[in-house]
Amino acid sequence: MTNPRFDVAGIGNAIVDVLTQTDDALLDSEGLAKGAMTLVDADQARQVYDKVGPAVECSGGSAANTIAVMAGLGAKCAFMGKVKDDAFGKIFAHDIRSLGVHYQTAPAADGPDTGNCLVLVTPDAQRTMLTHLGASIHFGPADVDLEAVKDAKVTYLEGYLWDPEDAKQAFRTAAKTAEDAGREVSLSLSDPFCVDRHRADFLDLIEGHVDILFANEAEIMALYEVDSFDEAAAKVAGHCKIAALTRSEKGSVVVSDAGMQAVPAAPVGKVIDTTGAGDAYAAGFLYGYTQGEDLVTCAKMGGIAAGEVICQMGARPETDLKAAMALKLRD
Amino acid sequence: MTNPRFDVAGIGNAIVDVLTQTDDALLDSEGLAKGAMTLVDADQARQVYDKVGPAVECSGGSAANTIAVMAGLGAKCAFMGKVKDDAFGKIFAHDIRSLGVHYQTAPAADGPDTGNCLVLVTPDAQRTMLTHLGASIHFGPADVDLEAVKDAKVTYLEGYLWDPEDAKQAFRTAAKTAEDAGREVSLSLSDPFCVDRHRADFLDLIEGHVDILFANEAEIMALYEVDSFDEAAAKVAGHCKIAALTRSEKGSVVVSDAGMQAVPAAPVGKVIDTTGAGDAYAAGFLYGYTQGEDLVTCAKMGGIAAGEVICQMGARPETDLKAAMALKLRD
Repeated sequence: MTNPRFDVAGIGNAIVDVLTQTDDALLDSEGLAKGAMTLVDADQARQVYDKVGPAVECSGGSAANTIAVMAGLGAKCAFMGKVKDDAFGKIFAHDIRSLGVHYQTAPAADGPDTGNCLVLVTPDAQRTMLTHLGASIHFGPADVDLEAVKDAKVTYLEGYLWDPEDAKQAFRTAAKTAEDAGREVSLSLSDPFCVDRHRADFLDLIEGHVDILFANEAEIMALYEVDSFDEAAAKVAGHCKIAALTRSEKGSVVVSDAGMQAVPAAPVGKVIDTTGAGDAYAAGFLYGYTQGEDLVTCAKMGGIAAGEVICQMGARPETDLKAAMALKLRD
Repeated sequence: MTNPRFDVAGIGNAIVDVLTQTDDALLDSEGLAKGAMTLVDADQARQVYDKVGPAVECSGGSAANTIAVMAGLGAKCAFMGKVKDDAFGKIFAHDIRSLGVHYQTAPAADGPDTGNCLVLVTPDAQRTMLTHLGASIHFGPADVDLEAVKDAKVTYLEGYLWDPEDAKQAFRTAAKTAEDAGREVSLSLSDPFCVDRHRADFLDLIEGHVDILFANEAEIMALYEVDSFDEAAAKVAGHCKIAALTRSEKGSVVVSDAGMQAVPAAPVGKVIDTTGAGDAYAAGFLYGYTQGEDLVTCAKMGGIAAGEVICQMGARPETDLKAAMALKLRD
């Protein structure tokens, strides 16, 4: 097999984040579950936006964040996700391409605007997200860049993309294509509510097709409908090659045929905004993995990337993550 | 005279900033003068945008920043500036209104898009700006909210708005209206190149109509075409009621009928991005001024506001400036 052109090809929602700092009272009055992602339509999104303070806009999307962070670390990446040909769509495309990521999904000429995610950051650094998927829901099987999937060591799928019907089919197409080409498939569960919505589909996908699974405590417990992390970690063993399970300040646990390996979290500064912590963990881990590092090193790299991202507003690092990674891996 | 409804009414460009970190090589290859603001058309803006890395978008505009910072401090403010009814226009209007600022300028239904400013931040924390004025240039005398101007203690004018012809006339209308209502007029010189473009106009406006002038060293020296700050400061004396002259880390000098009063800069942390330092200084100063503080306290408040803004990316404070101000004024 020739050396693949890409380390990772990601598929996910292509959205722009609208980040704002707010207080718990707003979450209460709007009936929003803290820390979760809620799908909303354009009107609902506007209704909450009108109630919040000044915001900052930057490219987002879970898998897109992972790909952006990996590209910043030096990985060769591709991304697939649907925007509209509008102002936010141009921002999304610029930001990901400017990192050297291969991004060629055709923008929609009509239909809903480019999707956006209103990220409400509370003083405890938790983020609560209201996502208007917009043009993202029109990502379908025809948008899968088959050549990129065949030519990537790992194809990385964002759980959130299971919400739109067309995208679900696109995922299956991508997973099958990767498998047939002898490549690996990775899935991030994204959110416990997302897991609740798609449990049977996810279990089915993981069993037959996923090599590397990413989930946090709440997600893996939701997947197996159990009450403790240990039970969940025991259940996932054997169902995929590697499960990388994140536990916030407790670090992460890697489940593989080498058993369970616990890796402590990287030391961090003042936590400002946890948006993108999971996305960055996956980026650090997959970067290590595609460079041939052992699983414990991969988990450490994931922890360092997540630790950098939570000390700033937003999901894509403002600092030189490559330098931080080199420095902290030495410790 | 009844108590005015507003502390300050600001008039300026209504634009969205596109902030990105870059290196000196790009400035050199594009032939851009570091630290300056260059006016560009949509094509030129796009050409440089295509060459830079990921960006973050947030509301900007010099006078709009000043008004936003003042509103965050608790002042009652109005703002006038022209956007188009598009995605960036909606962001601008949301951000300023969400701070409680009275903003009623009708958005343009057609013509150029909402203006934007590509802010290139170099590792030395300097910012170099490429501004595409867009819809801002259609701000004209009919857009001046005469009632707001009559009902504001101070009407604050952004030097940059002298570039479009219509806006120049709008400024004169606003200054005359404020004067006739017994209110005060303030002007910020904005940029030494802006001063070069409009020297005669500015001198004329200051002589007859400006009560409070804001300028940095380079701007006040450009205005009087002299080589030293001391000469410039001596020249401005007597031409307006108050001149607040900023000198970066050397603090500021207030020239008034009380003579020259030098105020040291506030101690700051690591400087990240000097975008908006002058805007924030004017905000702190005018906030103090409209609350009846003495000029030295006003200058201190300006320094504290500027000091907060330069320790983050972007021109509008992410932190609680009100709390920082209360704390630092005690020192």
